[in-house]
Amino acid sequence: MNAPALIALDWGTSNLRASLLDPDAREIDRRSAPGGIMTVKDGRFSEALLSLVGDWVEKYPCPLIASGMIGSRQGWKEAPYLDCPATLAQAAENLTRVELPQNHGASRTVYIAPGLRCLESNGQFDVMRGEEIQVWGAEIAPGSLCILPGTHSKWAWLGADGAISRFRTYMTGELYGLLTKHGILGRLMTFGAPSPAHFKTGVRMGLESPDQASHVIFSARTAGLMGAIPSEGLPDYLSGILTGLEIAAATAAHGAALPPITLIGDDDLCGRYESALECVGVTSRRAGQNATTSGQWKVAKKAGLV
Amino acid sequence: MNAPALIALDWGTSNLRASLLDPDAREIDRRSAPGGIMTVKDGRFSEALLSLVGDWVEKYPCPLIASGMIGSRQGWKEAPYLDCPATLAQAAENLTRVELPQNHGASRTVYIAPGLRCLESNGQFDVMRGEEIQVWGAEIAPGSLCILPGTHSKWAWLGADGAISRFRTYMTGELYGLLTKHGILGRLMTFGAPSPAHFKTGVRMGLESPDQASHVIFSARTAGLMGAIPSEGLPDYLSGILTGLEIAAATAAHGAALPPITLIGDDDLCGRYESALECVGVTSRRAGQNATTSGQWKVAKKAGLV
Repeated sequence: MNAPALIALDWGTSNLRASLLDPDAREIDRRSAPGGIMTVKDGRFSEALLSLVGDWVEKYPCPLIASGMIGSRQGWKEAPYLDCPATLAQAAENLTRVELPQNHGASRTVYIAPGLRCLESNGQFDVMRGEEIQVWGAEIAPGSLCILPGTHSKWAWLGADGAISRFRTYMTGELYGLLTKHGILGRLMTFGAPSPAHFKTGVRMGLESPDQASHVIFSARTAGLMGAIPSEGLPDYLSGILTGLEIAAATAAHGAALPPITLIGDDDLCGRYESALECVGVTSRRAGQNATTSGQWKVAKKAGLV
Repeated sequence: MNAPALIALDWGTSNLRASLLDPDAREIDRRSAPGGIMTVKDGRFSEALLSLVGDWVEKYPCPLIASGMIGSRQGWKEAPYLDCPATLAQAAENLTRVELPQNHGASRTVYIAPGLRCLESNGQFDVMRGEEIQVWGAEIAPGSLCILPGTHSKWAWLGADGAISRFRTYMTGELYGLLTKHGILGRLMTFGAPSPAHFKTGVRMGLESPDQASHVIFSARTAGLMGAIPSEGLPDYLSGILTGLEIAAATAAHGAALPPITLIGDDDLCGRYESALECVGVTSRRAGQNATTSGQWKVAKKAGLV
């Protein structure tokens, strides 16, 4: 294999994923562990990192770059937010350094990418950490819209210059998890069987009632009680409602016809959003699965690290 | 004391509350236990009831009436829903009987009040169990609106004839509990200190963004991250956002100026709703604290049990 050129760390709340990239930004090797920042005690981030890829660090004298919640206040070191509109070049100019102690008294630098923040018309900020790297890595056309479904779904709009001009967070995935795992809606549900038809029924419910969120989700209980939807269909019905609410909300906030959309995420989630977006007559394309490492590589290159 | 005339059971998901009423519907004694239907194993409802008020049942030969989730499918016996519009007289005509075995081979009947269901224009049902008894007990003027804040807040509209003509559930309390106890928003929060000013700020946020629910709640994270609201203020800020969203949603669903409002619930919750309703220029009055037993008494009387 080619000599490794970059160790790229996607370090979030729950997981730590490490990729070893060659000089063409191709992944030579990858490892992951449930070593997200919430599992790291007493600031022992160096130890967490070395326990996963200590041998890489020892063997390969290449730089390390990290993105995600590792740069948050609860992470290794806070990497200050860039204000939107924000470009990849600005991110590369604003890397935060932490030192990784090594054997024999030497140290290696880990470069943490900044997150983005975005001031809304009501005076509130929105924030992201990690998703901006995926957007830059996904080769999105200027002027288009990027959706990153997940625990906290992000809708990111790109300016004509390729900068992320603004974005908006929807807590769709977290709400689904909380309602099904800890709430009353989960009690009538049987999990495990996908139900695309009930998903679409839910999407339409959410789209029709954008201003009734905390009411319309209750229909995932009543539809079960009344036998309108079988218990196996209820998880996807609720998932559909929440996704429909998100699409209605983001569309209303955008205030105009949606520009071309790229979805970034795992196949199951992207499939759900494709299907939901079809309900409002919007087509979308999927980004490749290497958006994260591709974005990390570009930032590292712009910063002169590779 | 007067001879007891009714044992009234308010039997919900988490708690069982029993009241002993005299022939003037005054409470002689009350007891409660965390013996809600979710804690009762293998259908042992008789045992759960007798362990709380076995001595009352033994000593006083008066009837027993029950309302709440005890009449649900997960309860003692399903008491079929009445369709809205529904009157107290219809509830009294549709009590579901269960037999309570006693010593010496005798048995006593427990009369379970039916819940209500309400068909919405989108073909979905909404349901309530227990709140209808409180509405009927609270002496609400015909034509007015009743709000019962809680885990699942209910907004109930009364017809000119005093029937509950329709109602709507908002999962406000459950969402607050899930987001603060199990979600990421709770991680930045310090609980315990009331913060009425941040509550009102939250209410206004919710009112301004009725169609952005899963986005605007995320501001309870960003406002913490940015230091805009101290950690002690964040619980009430989130509570305000959710309450504001509920009021905006119910107002939009009503589609006209709200009629006179009566609040039924504990003092803290009613105080929050009063304060939130002031933000939209709506005044409200509070029902007395005996709405439940008063409603149970009226149903028992109408049914000829007392």
